[in-house]
Amino acid sequence: MKLVLLLSITLALSWALPFEQRGFWDFSMDDGLPMMNDEEEGSGTPPPVLPPVPMDCPFGCQCHLRVIQCSDLGLTSVPKNIPHDTRLLDLQNNKITEIRKDDFLGLHNLYALVLVNNKISKVHEKAFDPLKRLQKLYISKNNLAEIPHSLPHSLVELRIHENKIKKVSKDIFNGLKNVNCIEMGGNPLENSGFEPGAFDGLKLNYLRISEAKLTGVPKDLPDTLNELHLDHNQIQAIELEDLIRYSKLYRLGLGFNKIRMIENGSLNFLPMMRELHLDNNKLSSVPPGLPDLKMLQVVYLHANNITQVGVNDFCPVGFGTKRVSYNGISLFSNPVPYWEVQPAAFRCVSSRLAIQFGNYRK
Amino acid sequence: MKLVLLLSITLALSWALPFEQRGFWDFSMDDGLPMMNDEEEGSGTPPPVLPPVPMDCPFGCQCHLRVIQCSDLGLTSVPKNIPHDTRLLDLQNNKITEIRKDDFLGLHNLYALVLVNNKISKVHEKAFDPLKRLQKLYISKNNLAEIPHSLPHSLVELRIHENKIKKVSKDIFNGLKNVNCIEMGGNPLENSGFEPGAFDGLKLNYLRISEAKLTGVPKDLPDTLNELHLDHNQIQAIELEDLIRYSKLYRLGLGFNKIRMIENGSLNFLPMMRELHLDNNKLSSVPPGLPDLKMLQVVYLHANNITQVGVNDFCPVGFGTKRVSYNGISLFSNPVPYWEVQPAAFRCVSSRLAIQFGNYRK
Repeated sequence: MKLVLLLSITLALSWALPFEQRGFWDFSMDDGLPMMNDEEEGSGTPPPVLPPVPMDCPFGCQCHLRVIQCSDLGLTSVPKNIPHDTRLLDLQNNKITEIRKDDFLGLHNLYALVLVNNKISKVHEKAFDPLKRLQKLYISKNNLAEIPHSLPHSLVELRIHENKIKKVSKDIFNGLKNVNCIEMGGNPLENSGFEPGAFDGLKLNYLRISEAKLTGVPKDLPDTLNELHLDHNQIQAIELEDLIRYSKLYRLGLGFNKIRMIENGSLNFLPMMRELHLDNNKLSSVPPGLPDLKMLQVVYLHANNITQVGVNDFCPVGFGTKRVSYNGISLFSNPVPYWEVQPAAFRCVSSRLAIQFGNYRK
Repeated sequence: MKLVLLLSITLALSWALPFEQRGFWDFSMDDGLPMMNDEEEGSGTPPPVLPPVPMDCPFGCQCHLRVIQCSDLGLTSVPKNIPHDTRLLDLQNNKITEIRKDDFLGLHNLYALVLVNNKISKVHEKAFDPLKRLQKLYISKNNLAEIPHSLPHSLVELRIHENKIKKVSKDIFNGLKNVNCIEMGGNPLENSGFEPGAFDGLKLNYLRISEAKLTGVPKDLPDTLNELHLDHNQIQAIELEDLIRYSKLYRLGLGFNKIRMIENGSLNFLPMMRELHLDNNKLSSVPPGLPDLKMLQVVYLHANNITQVGVNDFCPVGFGTKRVSYNGISLFSNPVPYWEVQPAAFRCVSSRLAIQFGNYRK
């Protein structure tokens, strides 16, 4: 059983099956070349049956090794007659306005569907039903006002950046047990747009809701997250229990917000934190709790209002209580007089070069 | 030797190597989880060396199975420290303005580079030098005024749609023996923009120069072409020898031009032609020579000025001289009185349904 699973993962991950041993664009092999070798005419024999290969490929697309490449064609709808064994269908950079009920009929082997940069405002609720093996759906840069209903349960990665999504309703992710990555930045999402329980049951590792309209860290996201990216929002503070749920985070992106305050103790819920980005905010001091983050290696604090750096702001007092050295601390573009900072403040940094100080980058 | 070649093709075609038997986004396996199991502090032992996995991944990107996914991050330059074993680097939908000399240093295993939808106007002439195994370069939707110099000799597919390219200079494709597909539509290319010999040595199967400023079929393209797409240009006529070089074409897209005239005999140089798109032009009659195209299955002639259809315009007179039946002829949106067309005009069509007639689609 495990072997079967591994095998199917391996197959799914290959953009082409390993046993497809053909040259990449080697059309000509299938294309009647042998037939054209005999040139006599009018022999009276019935016309031979041609192999269906090139005609199965929508005009202007390129079709090889189960990859259907139809980007940049000015298409206004999903082409018909896509071969049923297609693994990857690339329809990006077209003018598709709508995904209709039968657009993906028969594509039960599709692994990745790329619809980025179209004009899609409507997805029929049954349109994805045939896609029983779809793992990647890239539908960024469209006009969707909501996340499509009935996403395939096989989905692993959803990229739905830059649409017009304002609301994530409670049941929209139902049954998506395999999804571990959602990129939904660039949407006009406010905190109130997430219905309670919307993320229930998801086991996400990666979530990005950057470039949105969040005013605080959403409280209801999956507790499985390893990476959470909330940069370019309107977040003003990190309060004590904002992060309590996210104890598995090792990367947190909060740059380009309006954070003035990080409540004492709020970072203590992040024992695995390795990389914390708080640059381009309104912090007036180094956030409390950094010395206790034993795995922390990178802290971005540049472009804030930090006026002083204390000798114990970064490093713990006891020797050996920090497990890794810092290898990146950025403090430039802050009004801190760097000649007043004691060198010992950086005693747990791997090298002087790991500190970006001064205002030279301003 | 042949086995080695097949193997390397197989590996190159897989977006992940088949022997990478890990779950797709299974971050957590590499991420210090085991270390966090022992929680005691201050033991005095030196900090353990952490596996470099997540830190090798640029912040905000997702890095798995040698795929580095950094799209939609607002990046203004190529991130540093991309792992050297990366196979696919996706940087699309960012704000990268320039590709610098050292941006891809060490990426000698890169197979596909996606730079679509950035603001790239400059590529350093040595930037691609490290990419000894790059097969796919997708750099559509940027601000390039010319095709980058020193494209990797390993390149198989180049997509450079929607840039600002006006000129294709003589040596730009030098040494690209493996390229078989170029998509360069959506550029302000005139016929005079192609320097003589620019395509010499290329063995292309697929070329698309749609949505450009061509006034005629370029004469100097590779004679290996199977598909040529020149739709949405300003082509006014097909002259006798325009297509003489392209005897291997089986798909030709000439829709949305201004073609009034197709010279008698000009199509006879296309013995393998299967699908011919001439819709949305200014033709006043069915082009001469169709009955001689023994492999022709699809002809689009809709949205022209065709006023009559002769009984021998599509089908040859002798039985058995055509090798395949038509399965698609479009004639709608033409001022032809369809009741005057003799049914025998379509005697070599597979089914009545294959004919789109009348003006009902106007």
